[in-house]
Amino acid sequence: MKLLDAIQIPDDVRKLSIEQLAQLCKELREFIIDESSRNPGHFGASLGTVELTVALHYALNTPHDRIVWDVGHQAYAHKIITGRKEQFHSNRTFGGISGFPNPAESEYDSFIAGHSSTSISAALGMAIAAQQQGVERHIVAVIGDGSMTGGMAFEALNHAGFANANILVILNDNNMAIDAGVGALNQYLLDISTSRMYNTLKNTTWNFLERVSNFGVNIKKMAQKTGNAFKSMLLKESNLFEAFNFRYFGPVDGHNVFQLVRTIQDLQQIPGPKLLHIKTQKGKGFKPAEEKQTEWHAPRKFNKHTGEMISAPDARLTPPKYQKVFGETLLELAALDERVVGVTPAMASGCSMNILMNAMPHRAFDVGIAEQHAVTFAAGMAKDGLLPFCNIYSSFMQRAYDQVIHDVALQQLPVIFCLDRAGLVGADGATHHGMFDIAFMRAIPHLIVASPLHEIELRNLLYTAYKAEKPFVIRYPRGGGQFVDWKLPMEELEIGKGMCIREGNDIAILAFGPLGYRAHTVAETVAKTHNISVAVYNMRFVKPLDTELLNNIFAKFSAIITIEDGVKTGGFGSAIEEYAQQQRAQVAITVCGLPDEFIPHGTQNELHALCGLNEEGITQTILQNAKK
Amino acid sequence: MKLLDAIQIPDDVRKLSIEQLAQLCKELREFIIDESSRNPGHFGASLGTVELTVALHYALNTPHDRIVWDVGHQAYAHKIITGRKEQFHSNRTFGGISGFPNPAESEYDSFIAGHSSTSISAALGMAIAAQQQGVERHIVAVIGDGSMTGGMAFEALNHAGFANANILVILNDNNMAIDAGVGALNQYLLDISTSRMYNTLKNTTWNFLERVSNFGVNIKKMAQKTGNAFKSMLLKESNLFEAFNFRYFGPVDGHNVFQLVRTIQDLQQIPGPKLLHIKTQKGKGFKPAEEKQTEWHAPRKFNKHTGEMISAPDARLTPPKYQKVFGETLLELAALDERVVGVTPAMASGCSMNILMNAMPHRAFDVGIAEQHAVTFAAGMAKDGLLPFCNIYSSFMQRAYDQVIHDVALQQLPVIFCLDRAGLVGADGATHHGMFDIAFMRAIPHLIVASPLHEIELRNLLYTAYKAEKPFVIRYPRGGGQFVDWKLPMEELEIGKGMCIREGNDIAILAFGPLGYRAHTVAETVAKTHNISVAVYNMRFVKPLDTELLNNIFAKFSAIITIEDGVKTGGFGSAIEEYAQQQRAQVAITVCGLPDEFIPHGTQNELHALCGLNEEGITQTILQNAKK
Repeated sequence: MKLLDAIQIPDDVRKLSIEQLAQLCKELREFIIDESSRNPGHFGASLGTVELTVALHYALNTPHDRIVWDVGHQAYAHKIITGRKEQFHSNRTFGGISGFPNPAESEYDSFIAGHSSTSISAALGMAIAAQQQGVERHIVAVIGDGSMTGGMAFEALNHAGFANANILVILNDNNMAIDAGVGALNQYLLDISTSRMYNTLKNTTWNFLERVSNFGVNIKKMAQKTGNAFKSMLLKESNLFEAFNFRYFGPVDGHNVFQLVRTIQDLQQIPGPKLLHIKTQKGKGFKPAEEKQTEWHAPRKFNKHTGEMISAPDARLTPPKYQKVFGETLLELAALDERVVGVTPAMASGCSMNILMNAMPHRAFDVGIAEQHAVTFAAGMAKDGLLPFCNIYSSFMQRAYDQVIHDVALQQLPVIFCLDRAGLVGADGATHHGMFDIAFMRAIPHLIVASPLHEIELRNLLYTAYKAEKPFVIRYPRGGGQFVDWKLPMEELEIGKGMCIREGNDIAILAFGPLGYRAHTVAETVAKTHNISVAVYNMRFVKPLDTELLNNIFAKFSAIITIEDGVKTGGFGSAIEEYAQQQRAQVAITVCGLPDEFIPHGTQNELHALCGLNEEGITQTILQNAKK
Repeated sequence: MKLLDAIQIPDDVRKLSIEQLAQLCKELREFIIDESSRNPGHFGASLGTVELTVALHYALNTPHDRIVWDVGHQAYAHKIITGRKEQFHSNRTFGGISGFPNPAESEYDSFIAGHSSTSISAALGMAIAAQQQGVERHIVAVIGDGSMTGGMAFEALNHAGFANANILVILNDNNMAIDAGVGALNQYLLDISTSRMYNTLKNTTWNFLERVSNFGVNIKKMAQKTGNAFKSMLLKESNLFEAFNFRYFGPVDGHNVFQLVRTIQDLQQIPGPKLLHIKTQKGKGFKPAEEKQTEWHAPRKFNKHTGEMISAPDARLTPPKYQKVFGETLLELAALDERVVGVTPAMASGCSMNILMNAMPHRAFDVGIAEQHAVTFAAGMAKDGLLPFCNIYSSFMQRAYDQVIHDVALQQLPVIFCLDRAGLVGADGATHHGMFDIAFMRAIPHLIVASPLHEIELRNLLYTAYKAEKPFVIRYPRGGGQFVDWKLPMEELEIGKGMCIREGNDIAILAFGPLGYRAHTVAETVAKTHNISVAVYNMRFVKPLDTELLNNIFAKFSAIITIEDGVKTGGFGSAIEEYAQQQRAQVAITVCGLPDEFIPHGTQNELHALCGLNEEGITQTILQNAKK
């Protein structure tokens, strides 16, 4: 009989003795390894927070007390002990539980957390709400050292230190975001943690504090005193967090659940803003994941005994991922022209900029989880003669919208934005779908906004943007393309020009992006099955529009379908409608795209089906609208 | 003969002896006071940076070396000595020079700067560009203590400390943003500056450094050594900036031009990232402005001898500003319901939230220049039962787009976003126009997006949003409304419902926001002058649309004009077109709004005329489209 078998909710955890918690952690870890070997997910981060999760729920009275997870993929253990053990096998699958905390799913999930660096802000809001309402409540934000590089985390520290609210920020320092941590903050945390004298003394103090933790009211004074002593005597670097008026505690071992419980209990008695710095290891307890942390951030299925990942299909026989086409083409362009540089906010491997980074380390810049800075930094480089390719996932680009407008478009600087993960991304769900970029980017003057039909066209668009030396946005999806032989000589495309990729007479499909390729397949089929003659146009640019081509289409067709992997509200279809009205074109336009709602998680295919963007959905739309 | 008379460009400044600079500063200050008394502008900040400006241009070789001003309204002295003295009288006027640095205007303006906290990112980009190209160049970012609270400044510090680039950040600490500074950082800077022992020793060192500044190579070591000594011995608080691997120098008197020149010259010899902390006084040299800094941030015309401002019209006889309607109504709502709170990112007086702040200090939160945090902080409060009204200028809301999507809309939390300064704002120009919010907000699921016809309707919309307890956006313009007696009992409006405000037969105008009021006036006129019968509809909500009303309009009219103070691309008109297409309505729609380009500065009237949104422009559009 395992302890975990008796755990449904945190109340069950709190029934255990403190000595049993280590055993529970061991079982939880095994559970996560077992489940993740069969149903892939964000593995490494969640293994690192098992002890912290158990300690938090043990020490706090959840859900009355609040745990705010920053970037929820560290929260698997949390999900398992808050009523979702039995559903955990459905993690990230269509209809199953979400890979991130989601208040709609459980009262223990106090806030949504897909994007990083939000937890301190949300926790502070909750603390102020409790204060205003006279509610006694402990509020804890758990934030990784990667998320800590996001600017809004500092905005929140600055406010929290001033508001003097009762919150505990736990800095979960694993020296990693998804890729190895970068930035001065990272170096700082490393220094602070590895200083031997500092740690020896600190540990002694912590042990002492543990022995005396029943002192009650005195503990606050004591902790403060010892804190001050350390600060002035020992720290090679000064303490960043105390500059923000946070009481700093740590670093402590984040895998010692006993110590964590005691520490959290003690800190509950100290009012005001506090930061507890814990050291954890990503992938803890699963050797291969401990050793290769980036690889095991979100691995494929694997053999839990041997650590062998279920082998991927042979890359030589499979069409490449779009990200790989980006990564390899960027390296070629960088080799071609020394003005070309790359910028990524902590997604070097996710967007394949690591290809450039490995080959030419001084030409690629990982700036940390810092989209705002990434864009303006790129703008600064562009202002003084470089040609930066700034790769940001579509949904993360929402973080840097102002900078695109204010620092790039307004000055017409040649920054090339490559929006990976545009459209529905699949298992990561609502927080990560790249739904809005077409709508929010095409509103900006001076921008060129493009999307490729397939990976060869992505390559050509990258080359085109490079030649254009203008602010340029290229959006492309998560996942793989169509062609094994994609590495053809690069070709410059005419900006603002689309093309007919299939002639037809009954109806025209105008596509923006790779869904056009699918539409082409469907058109071939309905020609045979329903004798409908469908023309397909690859528009390539939503800005500027190919007005000449559109005029021809309006002249020939009375029915048009537009198709895009983005919101219909204000998107590509809307752009076509705007132009049609402007021309007073007598044409019936049907817009296919994402509906005006947040889309859940599932496979990309399942979600496209849900939105009528799979082959069947497109077929139906054709049948309903074709004018025979 | 004044020194300033001989100054056209910085080369002329560099011809002066260092002893003459204090005199030049005095003359510059008089020039700014004189010009600003007749042509209002951002007065206080620019008076505070006169010595810094002169010292920078004297010590650096501009424009080869780069000065990146953060939030350009500290840059008047810079404009005056970089070729724009004769045009300075046209500052912020239509066709005149911009109130902010603008590279399109001068090669000495190295980067645009209307929004805050961007300078370190841009400067770092330039430093990396210089490095890559093997160019020797000094790069200085000048950032205020207010701007320093913006998250992207920290993102940039984090990257710069790691990239080890040669940049000098000058922290212009006047203990103020527009309102008195808030936040832990502010307190920290105050502590660090006022510690007497610290300053005594620091000054001694600086004097010493000055004496030995010809040491050349040794200065670096010496400065570092003294720096370290201070750090461990003296600082009550630890040094925030050194945690980011910046060498910290200061604080020094920002009004001692001689010392500033020497310091900047010395720092040029020290490689790597450096921060110089200078203390300045907003409004320096003009007594009334020194004493009342918020009032004199951007004053009206004034008598430069007496300091009397040219009196504003009697408030009792003038329609109120929209911001005042917001501020007073918010206070009423707060009095009505204790769940109501206010959040502003450093715009308490600009948006009139200071009314609530003064009456109920614990119910209004100024979080610093930190839009991202403001939104998620509000979301956290809403999650736990409060009803936050979060007021952010439309163009600054671009900074928090992701947070609106991810933290508010996705969780359907009742945060009420009040977007002041929506539409064309006038003299602040391209960086500050609130052009995009209709397009970027209406794309977000679950949001309600509204705009009032006039200030009474703003009051009613605020009340409606309060009653709705849903994510709600209300956009309204800069400037004044229509009615002296606006404080009527608050009325709950039906969400998603517009109304006909003038019957007509020949053409329908569908308006979103206060331009509808203008359209109504025009409709009255053209009825008389041209015998055209124009119906006017106040749509109020762009999301959800009043589809019932639209169906009636489509049934009755074959010609429609939409009107909005926002970009046409993806905006309100686009929403009407989307619905018309969906209904296959046979109607010709003409969209009036802002064109797909950045709009310069000028008065709101001049700019509306430029975009065809004044009475004459609307008349023309009616004449061209009315179907008689």
